[in-house]
Amino acid sequence: MEYRKVKDQESYDDLSLKDVESLSGRSLSSANATGLSSAGGAKGKSSWKLKSVVTLALTLLTSSQAILIVWSKRAGKYEYSVITANFSVEALKCLLSLAALFRTWNHHGVTDDNRLTTSFDEVSVYPIPAILYMVKNLLQYYIFAYVDAPAYQILKNLNIISTGVLYRIILKKKLSEIQWAAFILLCAGCTTAQLNPSSDHVLQTPIQGWMMAIVMALLSGFAGVYTEAIIKKRPSRNINVQNFWLYIFGVIFNLVAICVQDYDAVMTKGFFHGYSFITVLMIVNHALSGIAVSMVMKYADNIVKVYSTSVAMLLTAVVSVFLFNFHLSLAFFLGSTVVSVSVYLHSVGKLQPQK
Amino acid sequence: MEYRKVKDQESYDDLSLKDVESLSGRSLSSANATGLSSAGGAKGKSSWKLKSVVTLALTLLTSSQAILIVWSKRAGKYEYSVITANFSVEALKCLLSLAALFRTWNHHGVTDDNRLTTSFDEVSVYPIPAILYMVKNLLQYYIFAYVDAPAYQILKNLNIISTGVLYRIILKKKLSEIQWAAFILLCAGCTTAQLNPSSDHVLQTPIQGWMMAIVMALLSGFAGVYTEAIIKKRPSRNINVQNFWLYIFGVIFNLVAICVQDYDAVMTKGFFHGYSFITVLMIVNHALSGIAVSMVMKYADNIVKVYSTSVAMLLTAVVSVFLFNFHLSLAFFLGSTVVSVSVYLHSVGKLQPQK
Repeated sequence: MEYRKVKDQESYDDLSLKDVESLSGRSLSSANATGLSSAGGAKGKSSWKLKSVVTLALTLLTSSQAILIVWSKRAGKYEYSVITANFSVEALKCLLSLAALFRTWNHHGVTDDNRLTTSFDEVSVYPIPAILYMVKNLLQYYIFAYVDAPAYQILKNLNIISTGVLYRIILKKKLSEIQWAAFILLCAGCTTAQLNPSSDHVLQTPIQGWMMAIVMALLSGFAGVYTEAIIKKRPSRNINVQNFWLYIFGVIFNLVAICVQDYDAVMTKGFFHGYSFITVLMIVNHALSGIAVSMVMKYADNIVKVYSTSVAMLLTAVVSVFLFNFHLSLAFFLGSTVVSVSVYLHSVGKLQPQK
Repeated sequence: MEYRKVKDQESYDDLSLKDVESLSGRSLSSANATGLSSAGGAKGKSSWKLKSVVTLALTLLTSSQAILIVWSKRAGKYEYSVITANFSVEALKCLLSLAALFRTWNHHGVTDDNRLTTSFDEVSVYPIPAILYMVKNLLQYYIFAYVDAPAYQILKNLNIISTGVLYRIILKKKLSEIQWAAFILLCAGCTTAQLNPSSDHVLQTPIQGWMMAIVMALLSGFAGVYTEAIIKKRPSRNINVQNFWLYIFGVIFNLVAICVQDYDAVMTKGFFHGYSFITVLMIVNHALSGIAVSMVMKYADNIVKVYSTSVAMLLTAVVSVFLFNFHLSLAFFLGSTVVSVSVYLHSVGKLQPQK
């Protein structure tokens, strides 16, 4: 059941990946007009290629994430402080965004679109998704009073449905009927792939557990959709500036968390206590994944992100067979088949005249 | 695990239902031209309605079949001879077909289409599917050397794929891309719905077991597709005449089986020994199901039959919750969701321009 442990760790990834995806843009509905096609000037031509590259990058980075987390542990325990690692991820993302910005400034000079300085109006909503994720992660401690960890993994697939529904309601973007069917299949397929003999526990989840799982799925879906709306609200704005403002709140939030939770340990043992080469690799991977998520939000959308991370979940399991002797179940094969058909239908569905 | 027992019994149903579906028509490809639309004259108008009614009838009859089989047993054993019950089903189907024919003759007189007498050319291929099913049922005894009963239930879902492939190859009818995707989902969904903690045994099936399972699926699929080809080869021929010739071979084959296997028991205890009211109900249900299968073959096709019996499998499980305290698993819900989406996609797929 090593794989389940891998999945368990993803709840902390969710935080590190996304509590940084804060965003800007007061009028959400105005973001509708600014889709991928209007993503500005010269980039417009190569948008399909860009979309494919960032999606592939997100898939590969996410699928290696869980594996690195397992490797970074010794005997099932973290030897390093998870919060300092989160902080390092956020800080690295800020640095990478700034480095990319410096290159842009050197080549093209400072313009309205790529200057780092910003208005309060633009930056004020960037911390909101971070706050949403914080509330979700607080709830996470309470939901375990009602459901066990394997059941929680199953319930987390509600995120797929909530993202689809909120994407439709908030961004007012339409999916074709076939794409909706594909999205239901994606949720069913991912859940099937994760089935194990104890999964039926989830059916005994009390009503409080269901309510909390649904609220958490909505918070997570809302944060994702909100990030997309705010990034797309200013399509011509340089993505690295947007990323910097997204990530800087992650740095601040994690600094507060270190002071509250890990101050003594950091002071006595040192900030980078217990870090190994794998820990550093993991931090680099997380930072790049985080940037890939932002890129997917700007050049594609939340639906692409959900497909990308779902396929990554399956890839992780397949790679785990070789690395950790993980046993692939019949349920995994069936779930993977359903997810594959879902990916196919999502792309075929686009071609339908009704879209 | 009462439900699994119910499913186990369906292998014998397959025999009683289908080894009677023998058929006629030397040139299979010529059957292509004679689809539902050409099913002749006055019936053409109401063909859609007829198709819906026979499909619904097949679904309801099949779903109550497994339940009646469980009821007809006492303490998990049959108190009656299964072979005499099969014979009774075949005989009843013949009688019902003849009764329907007498009514037609009284109303419309004897015509070329509804006369019972036939040419050797027409009737000569009717026993072929019966022989195919016999070979399949012989193989069934040998496959258990390589796979256990629950694994066999899982492998039986290969029938869905083999029917789709042979339907395409032999009848040369096209399914749209979305309908193919739906068909793969139907197979994956049905298998998912049947998953239980011991299902993973199927992955340890040796190569001989897989080969036999595939051969059995091909035999079963071929018999079904062959029946459809032969029934549709003469679209204007009265269905009750076709049924009579299909079923009479079932009567003969089962009479031989009684003589070979159950002669002593029948002679000492009597033909109807151990029959109860439920046994009689079960026989009536099987006879009507068999007729419904023929009707679906004539007015719809094998694809509709596969969807119909798959949905019936799910309905059986739901009804079993109330009747036998059968426990529905999470896998069942996920599988049912996938099957439902598959049914939806199959009907939406028809509307696509490429079809």
